[in-house]
Amino acid sequence: MSGVWGNKLKISIFGESHGVGIGVVINGLPTGFEVDWDEVLVEMARRAPGQNDLTTPRKESDLPEVLSGLFEGKTTGAPLTAIIRNQDTRSKDYSQLKNIMRPGQADYPGHVRYGGHNDHRGSGHFSGRITAPLVFAGAICKQLLAEKGIMIGSHIKSIGTIQDISFNETTVTKEQLEKFKTEQLPVFNEAKAEEMKQLILAAKQEGDSVGGTVECMVLGLEAGYGNPFFDSIESTLAHLMFSVPAVKGIEFGTGFAITELFGSQSNDAYYYEGDQIKTATNHNGGIIGGISNGMPIVFRAAVKPPASITKKQQTINISEKKDAELVIEGRHDPCIVPRVLPVIEAVTAIGILDLML
Amino acid sequence: MSGVWGNKLKISIFGESHGVGIGVVINGLPTGFEVDWDEVLVEMARRAPGQNDLTTPRKESDLPEVLSGLFEGKTTGAPLTAIIRNQDTRSKDYSQLKNIMRPGQADYPGHVRYGGHNDHRGSGHFSGRITAPLVFAGAICKQLLAEKGIMIGSHIKSIGTIQDISFNETTVTKEQLEKFKTEQLPVFNEAKAEEMKQLILAAKQEGDSVGGTVECMVLGLEAGYGNPFFDSIESTLAHLMFSVPAVKGIEFGTGFAITELFGSQSNDAYYYEGDQIKTATNHNGGIIGGISNGMPIVFRAAVKPPASITKKQQTINISEKKDAELVIEGRHDPCIVPRVLPVIEAVTAIGILDLML
Amino acid sequence: MSGVWGNKLKISIFGESHGVGIGVVINGLPTGFEVDWDEVLVEMARRAPGQNDLTTPRKESDLPEVLSGLFEGKTTGAPLTAIIRNQDTRSKDYSQLKNIMRPGQADYPGHVRYGGHNDHRGSGHFSGRITAPLVFAGAICKQLLAEKGIMIGSHIKSIGTIQDISFNETTVTKEQLEKFKTEQLPVFNEAKAEEMKQLILAAKQEGDSVGGTVECMVLGLEAGYGNPFFDSIESTLAHLMFSVPAVKGIEFGTGFAITELFGSQSNDAYYYEGDQIKTATNHNGGIIGGISNGMPIVFRAAVKPPASITKKQQTINISEKKDAELVIEGRHDPCIVPRVLPVIEAVTAIGILDLML
Amino acid sequence: MSGVWGNKLKISIFGESHGVGIGVVINGLPTGFEVDWDEVLVEMARRAPGQNDLTTPRKESDLPEVLSGLFEGKTTGAPLTAIIRNQDTRSKDYSQLKNIMRPGQADYPGHVRYGGHNDHRGSGHFSGRITAPLVFAGAICKQLLAEKGIMIGSHIKSIGTIQDISFNETTVTKEQLEKFKTEQLPVFNEAKAEEMKQLILAAKQEGDSVGGTVECMVLGLEAGYGNPFFDSIESTLAHLMFSVPAVKGIEFGTGFAITELFGSQSNDAYYYEGDQIKTATNHNGGIIGGISNGMPIVFRAAVKPPASITKKQQTINISEKKDAELVIEGRHDPCIVPRVLPVIEAVTAIGILDLML
Repeated sequence: MSGVWGNKLKISIFGESHGVGIGVVINGLPTGFEVDWDEVLVEMARRAPGQNDLTTPRKESDLPEVLSGLFEGKTTGAPLTAIIRNQDTRSKDYSQLKNIMRPGQADYPGHVRYGGHNDHRGSGHFSGRITAPLVFAGAICKQLLAEKGIMIGSHIKSIGTIQDISFNETTVTKEQLEKFKTEQLPVFNEAKAEEMKQLILAAKQEGDSVGGTVECMVLGLEAGYGNPFFDSIESTLAHLMFSVPAVKGIEFGTGFAITELFGSQSNDAYYYEGDQIKTATNHNGGIIGGISNGMPIVFRAAVKPPASITKKQQTINISEKKDAELVIEGRHDPCIVPRVLPVIEAVTAIGILDLML
Repeated sequence: MSGVWGNKLKISIFGESHGVGIGVVINGLPTGFEVDWDEVLVEMARRAPGQNDLTTPRKESDLPEVLSGLFEGKTTGAPLTAIIRNQDTRSKDYSQLKNIMRPGQADYPGHVRYGGHNDHRGSGHFSGRITAPLVFAGAICKQLLAEKGIMIGSHIKSIGTIQDISFNETTVTKEQLEKFKTEQLPVFNEAKAEEMKQLILAAKQEGDSVGGTVECMVLGLEAGYGNPFFDSIESTLAHLMFSVPAVKGIEFGTGFAITELFGSQSNDAYYYEGDQIKTATNHNGGIIGGISNGMPIVFRAAVKPPASITKKQQTINISEKKDAELVIEGRHDPCIVPRVLPVIEAVTAIGILDLML
Repeated sequence: MSGVWGNKLKISIFGESHGVGIGVVINGLPTGFEVDWDEVLVEMARRAPGQNDLTTPRKESDLPEVLSGLFEGKTTGAPLTAIIRNQDTRSKDYSQLKNIMRPGQADYPGHVRYGGHNDHRGSGHFSGRITAPLVFAGAICKQLLAEKGIMIGSHIKSIGTIQDISFNETTVTKEQLEKFKTEQLPVFNEAKAEEMKQLILAAKQEGDSVGGTVECMVLGLEAGYGNPFFDSIESTLAHLMFSVPAVKGIEFGTGFAITELFGSQSNDAYYYEGDQIKTATNHNGGIIGGISNGMPIVFRAAVKPPASITKKQQTINISEKKDAELVIEGRHDPCIVPRVLPVIEAVTAIGILDLML
Repeated sequence: MSGVWGNKLKISIFGESHGVGIGVVINGLPTGFEVDWDEVLVEMARRAPGQNDLTTPRKESDLPEVLSGLFEGKTTGAPLTAIIRNQDTRSKDYSQLKNIMRPGQADYPGHVRYGGHNDHRGSGHFSGRITAPLVFAGAICKQLLAEKGIMIGSHIKSIGTIQDISFNETTVTKEQLEKFKTEQLPVFNEAKAEEMKQLILAAKQEGDSVGGTVECMVLGLEAGYGNPFFDSIESTLAHLMFSVPAVKGIEFGTGFAITELFGSQSNDAYYYEGDQIKTATNHNGGIIGGISNGMPIVFRAAVKPPASITKKQQTINISEKKDAELVIEGRHDPCIVPRVLPVIEAVTAIGILDLML
């Protein structure tokens, strides 16, 4: 039951990395909406592999084909379905891996969960490739949100120990977010981008990988969306964020660091700016009691280093029930952070739109 | 629709802080289970206010009354319902607050969300008091998990900047978790407990408050539970955790710090210990691909300082549409962390049981 | 998981016939709605037992107590909860029945389903008594629908083989539906009411019971509500209707008899009456493609004779694993149809409101 | 949100009659199951048009392509997706119909529901063609049920006023159900089959259409499946049945006729046949309290005459806001009953399997 999410929207994703194809069915979209397909392809290109020397050289054309839910270029209200056929798969790269459990990958838990029947090639249904349909769905949701004046953007907050500065939670503009969308390593401090690049290339050289954090922002969401308890904005976004492979943490507003403040500091004081209600600080990341307060939504997600490395690793052979050594070949990302930005934005868009419909 | 959660379990919570009563309906419990009510009351007492000088002096007897779902002491398979009547409420404490939006509280977003019709007294349905039914439900789930050899426990990882040491993710025992349950400030390093206590009392003295982090562990969960994507263990637990008022962050395993490792470090190497499959490290917190790998589940949650402080605060009056000053009276917790431990354990139990049924 | 229903509304019912109490939690109600409690009690009185010599002499005061979701008389947006404590239960009437499976009752399937742990007294959670909270919830939904110009009413279409005439699907007025609400045996043809009464009393005299059909109508629902496939109006209402104990059939519009028409007859022809679109006939009961077409919604439900009769019956003793004879004592309804009318209207109101929110 | 159904299974269907393609995503299938594709194609062929002179001459090859969820011929546990590309569509047949609302079709309610943006060609998403993916999903569910000893079959109970005899609810065998699967007009009384055929051909000759009823049976389901109230077997099956276009009624067991019995008749008496518990009659259709009692499940569904007829009809033109006459051309089924049998069996299989998982 892993593949369906949503209340007013219902997103159903499917596919395996080396199967016939992957895709998504989206229920609940407003009718009569004219999707900007160029914009959808821009988002998908941000996630696609093979863009530059920081990512896997694996190429995917990743052109989604829409099967249903559109008529004369507009959404019909019926489920909107898109599929992407798999190409450029080299399944033999994975043939040796049937019984050797790759550390950090879902091989072993997946083997137990599915009784050994899961498609292990390229991580099968666990593959990051299944995020392509999420980006497709998110790109449409982003456009629907843009009509309501809402924009979602993100930047790389850190790669390894190299830190960019944070969003200013009250003054960042949509223009800044828009600019980030076109950058290879979107950061505020460009000197850091070069350091990050060198770290990634060094890891690649070693057959190793590095992680990082993503900082994401939702601008333009008015006060009053979300719910207390089970359908809080934080619950909704965190649920989706941990559906993105490799995410191991999420924090809203000042996050873990809010625990070092006193209440007199962490309570964001309200004031009127003309007719508008604002807060002087934004330690709560635009969300109190699970509901938006009109300030920007800010959160950070921790993205672990890709598990696929070519360095020799210790692991087990489950058919022989003994320890084993493993050297993986194939084409891998030394760092997934740049490609995960549009995925994180996409699921954020899906979550926010679901709460607003 | 905020009050219902679950797939195989369905938990429906209700109530307002100063209404007639609060409670929970639990669908999907196994039948014929004999609940240990003493144990349930122990859990509820851990969360209850008025325990000592670190918590609010407000007293609640908090005795749940079971209305349905039990017959001859055992679960029937029909919905199990418990209610707790509200007592010792001093609603006049809140009468001045109808139009003054307390910073850090859900007053303003709740006012917008519910068109001004939400019960504002004592935060109404947003109150931390609504977590009492969650602890009730969680206490039953804990007992059902115990039958499967699973134990959930937690300690205070930090108060303000005072840090306890972390769980050793591979060697902590059920005995240690059990011991923590009876402590006022459960930490490994007892010297830190005294420091934490002083910090809390100092904040109380100032009419201020402090936050902290909770570290929680699930021991005994076998490999193979959870799902990729939308129903991952992380998604499930994070969803529930952010339903607990004041939680602003969650991280699994090494969490945000995993982003500073190389893949060759963060990939937990498998090995055989006799017939058992283990990992040498546990940076992934017992979860890979959203599914348990048989190692302990570990996560930390960030708990912000309570918003209810008696220090003077800047805010707004929404009926007069102008800025205002606010001094709140009433009886408040200077630090919610000790009382939130059983809540975090409870929702963890609910989430894990739901994934296992 | 049997006790929760709904998409935008979420209704969670609970309770057993001879337990402590029964009730309902309603999520998703609009905020700021002032419930007319007299009207709620009128609906509950229509369902209550002990009204006259046609129903069981068992008395229930059935006064619901609202625990949450109301503030200053209006809905708050938080879950609205009401409980009804059980009274006048004579559990010893059922003590002999633990192992004797009453024919036509849920005793045997419930015993298997719940491993023998279900509360068997008075049918436990299977009892028709659990429909009281449904009527409570439905009464509130009816008031919310009335604000939108929508009225739901019903009459007895038949008792045994005694048939009333049917609604005229195009000309019945709200006044007629309103009048039915106050009648003991609401029918168009009053001569038939007397025949029905005699049949019920004769069955009662024999220690037997009779069934009947209910015809229900939704007036004032505009075109465009509902969905194709899984959330059609028919699917939604049928799902709810078969949740009402004793219902064994449902048909919309001309129903089973539509199968005897030609398409040229069953196709309801559209025409303009001024600006309004109407159909000349209403064989489709106001629903095409799962969606309302603006004509009255009409359906009939088949209600089987109450299973509780005092005549001697053949059955089994499951502890002794042999055949047995059974004579039930206790106080029972010889015919449930008059009391089921408000239940059918209530779940109709719940279903229609859910589709409209 | 119309396109997703299920609890433990989740079925997501999509597509429009004249769009690019249709299909289904199935979540929750057991892993390691080897699907018999020949058997799937047999079921799909039963539903396919163009089989003989009783159905529309429109040809569809209707070969489903599996995109995901299979590996080495077995289910992986990941979502199983199949698509069918549309062919042989003659959209110009529908171009005149944009503003002329066909009586008995979803044109008008769909137009209002979707703001005029629904794909009107060939009924778009409302088309009976979308039942092909349901048959595909149901065919897999049938095979999984067969492994548990459960068989689902059906026959034509009536066409127009021509009635076949009913199933004997206690003695019908799996062999009889199997035989029905290969017949053009499966009935017990073969003389009736010829009468039915003549009626259908006569209607076709007139440019008219006829309806009928389907009787369906589930053999081999043990006692104890289902739930009281909202997830009763009847609620589950009725919900699905009314998702099948043209179904206007459903009744279980003796159905509407049970209302003419006395309780002493409708209470199915239990007895032991060796170790097995049986009932002497089966008026309740194998379901009491929403739960199976081990006897065969029996229900009948009313299927209205196809709305697509070539006779002249009265209707409206919604762009011109005036009455209009309509003569539809195109290729239509004079009677949908023979083709709807496998659809009804399919959704029955989906519903029963969902309750059993």
